[in-house]
Amino acid sequence: MNTILVLGAGLSSTYLINYLIAHAATYNWEITVADGNLETAKLKTNNNPLTKAVCINANDEQAVSDLIKQHDVVISMLPAFMHVPIAKNCITHKKHLITASYISNEMQELHTQAIEAGVLLLNECGLDPGIDHLSAIKLIHEIKDKGGMITSFKSFCGGLVSPKYDDNPWNYKFTWNPRNVVVAGQSTAKYLSQGEIKFIPPSRIFTETENIEIENHGAYESYANRDSLGYINVYGIENAQTVLRGTLRKKGFSKAWNNLVKLGLTDDSFVIPNSDEMTYRELLNAFTPGDNINNLEQRVASFLNITTTNQEFEKLKWLGLFENQKITCKAGSPAAILQALLQQKWKLKEGELDRIVMYHELEYKVNNKQKKVTSSLVVDGETQVLTAMAKTVGLPLAIATKLIMLNKIQLKGVHLPLLPELYLPILEELKTYGIRFEEKEFSLE
Amino acid sequence: MNTILVLGAGLSSTYLINYLIAHAATYNWEITVADGNLETAKLKTNNNPLTKAVCINANDEQAVSDLIKQHDVVISMLPAFMHVPIAKNCITHKKHLITASYISNEMQELHTQAIEAGVLLLNECGLDPGIDHLSAIKLIHEIKDKGGMITSFKSFCGGLVSPKYDDNPWNYKFTWNPRNVVVAGQSTAKYLSQGEIKFIPPSRIFTETENIEIENHGAYESYANRDSLGYINVYGIENAQTVLRGTLRKKGFSKAWNNLVKLGLTDDSFVIPNSDEMTYRELLNAFTPGDNINNLEQRVASFLNITTTNQEFEKLKWLGLFENQKITCKAGSPAAILQALLQQKWKLKEGELDRIVMYHELEYKVNNKQKKVTSSLVVDGETQVLTAMAKTVGLPLAIATKLIMLNKIQLKGVHLPLLPELYLPILEELKTYGIRFEEKEFSLE
Repeated sequence: MNTILVLGAGLSSTYLINYLIAHAATYNWEITVADGNLETAKLKTNNNPLTKAVCINANDEQAVSDLIKQHDVVISMLPAFMHVPIAKNCITHKKHLITASYISNEMQELHTQAIEAGVLLLNECGLDPGIDHLSAIKLIHEIKDKGGMITSFKSFCGGLVSPKYDDNPWNYKFTWNPRNVVVAGQSTAKYLSQGEIKFIPPSRIFTETENIEIENHGAYESYANRDSLGYINVYGIENAQTVLRGTLRKKGFSKAWNNLVKLGLTDDSFVIPNSDEMTYRELLNAFTPGDNINNLEQRVASFLNITTTNQEFEKLKWLGLFENQKITCKAGSPAAILQALLQQKWKLKEGELDRIVMYHELEYKVNNKQKKVTSSLVVDGETQVLTAMAKTVGLPLAIATKLIMLNKIQLKGVHLPLLPELYLPILEELKTYGIRFEEKEFSLE
Repeated sequence: MNTILVLGAGLSSTYLINYLIAHAATYNWEITVADGNLETAKLKTNNNPLTKAVCINANDEQAVSDLIKQHDVVISMLPAFMHVPIAKNCITHKKHLITASYISNEMQELHTQAIEAGVLLLNECGLDPGIDHLSAIKLIHEIKDKGGMITSFKSFCGGLVSPKYDDNPWNYKFTWNPRNVVVAGQSTAKYLSQGEIKFIPPSRIFTETENIEIENHGAYESYANRDSLGYINVYGIENAQTVLRGTLRKKGFSKAWNNLVKLGLTDDSFVIPNSDEMTYRELLNAFTPGDNINNLEQRVASFLNITTTNQEFEKLKWLGLFENQKITCKAGSPAAILQALLQQKWKLKEGELDRIVMYHELEYKVNNKQKKVTSSLVVDGETQVLTAMAKTVGLPLAIATKLIMLNKIQLKGVHLPLLPELYLPILEELKTYGIRFEEKEFSLE
């Protein structure tokens, strides 16, 4: 195998493509980067003689098929919903596929076909999902190897702004897909707590948070991810009484965000016609109980059960929601209007960098002793192109690709990266890029 | 025209079909009743020589088309989502169509085609939507005719249990589609209040209620319907500062229902696998913050900010949500599980009857004087087959059908019943069936 196809050359592909190019000569790889925009693809390949930039319409099945046919391994950085037809194509042409997306039900259904075709469809191989799996399963295997039984598993990850540039009252800026942040927490979260299944509906996801103190890295909080229960089987931790995966934010974020949820401003299910004829103040007024827009500040404070001098109130004010300024978003849902506003307010300014924080906390029993292990990772962006997010998403994909190209992985079918032959070399090589977990062991006696 | 096709012979068609049969000889009508189940259709036609019962698969487009072709007027009692293909068929064969469903966007798009085909597609001609339009637009036209300007429009309707059989703590029993009740209020409600647009997200729909006292009929409350704003243009009440449509319940219902919403038990977006292996108590425990199921009563009360002796708490208890009883519903969403439970608890027992309550409250200015008019309707069921709901849904459809069959309506295109030539004779004839509004006029000086 010597040809690699990268589908999608957006911001998140930068580190991945750089890595592949850096290793191309050594391993005699030929790399094709395909994007809807030829210039975008060319920018990434940078005229390197071992690369080819091509323009592709990802909806043109024949064109995608022709391209896949000419390569040995395909990496898809396209939106997750496009992966299933690509995977089918890979099965047809007997090519391996790697993605950083969650395994959908439709993807899972391709498992047997992929095995029969001798093809590996490796998913969830970026940051979250990706590095979270690699580092968690390593801890789990280590504990099991020494005869331990895992009683509690908690895992958290957040894409944040690097502390040096953390200068707004929300302690947050967008460093990835803003839409995902605005519509987060809109379905019931499921997890296991002390042996009991727990459901958290959207109205409580941002209030039932957990405080997390990471040594040397400060105070965070976490809100529950959509489905933690599925990981009991995936990770093989059937004896755990607590299984929780969550998203990290700086302390105070969730409570303030919940006020936007309570007001109704994160609703994405209906469009306000001519929203650009409304001001932000009128929008907020429409979502606040009671009449009289002149009294809006008091009504909002009273509805949220806070004072107008409270920090939560200050956060709303800082966003400009009380301003008599016209909404920029035309015919948007409340969530779309809020997103457009937040994209102005929570924008990383020129030269500002992002930070990735990941944290696992496992409790286990070994020789009748209760122990705890924590594992934390903090990665800062290098530049606004070489962000922490692009690095932590792109490198695991790139290293997994290398392992497959070098025929080191015999796995076939639909998988996430849970095998030692994947997680050990990937985690090891990530260290050389400064992506290094700090592990600590405690006795709970 | 002398042939009528009724599609769907469920409970809601009884009164409609009875009326058509009762008038068939007079007007020389031939009536076909089509249902997925031939026995159901036969039960309704009752061997009447002017009727024909047929079995039809509503998804078999050709069969539906063949049937429509043989008739002059089609009444569809099928679920609303089936109406658009039927309407297209009616246009093709140049047949009129009548339904009791809201006009969807797809239905509205057929307007020009229907006019070109010379066809009337009359929708929203049952109870709500239906009688609400007929009675409201009559009041509006009367006020406008005497030079009045409508400043406030409020309209409410509820399907309830007749007071004689109102014997549970919720003061409610199912008298119509249970699913609609359980998933009500799951999208943002929109209305106009004192000149300002107001949005109420699902988390507040059952708390931002309005108390409504109907003279001689007791105390009710109302929660806002999905979209009241659209009726400003539909009813031609562009000067109204307040426009609100809502659903009526007995006082106390909404606050108690909101506790189910807060807990997350009305969520219909995910399925609990093997829910029939869980008890109701375990389900409630899963949705209540905190651990320890033995302490569930206190945790629920504390989360809802009520005491365990409070009436709201009693309502939850009465439903059996604290019981160690296995859930009957297999792999259901929380909403489906709740619905199955409520269908046992809120069932109309043998011989128990339903009640329909409708109430309009309009304020207007005439000759510089501020006035108010109220209009109320209360209808009780006659038997468990001849329910108030079947009567108030079926009769307007039946009378509208008669008017069309007698060529009294020249209207073409997609419409709801807002013209005097429809609402005047329908409201008049409804009186002979005991469906009679009580109107009252007040001076607000």
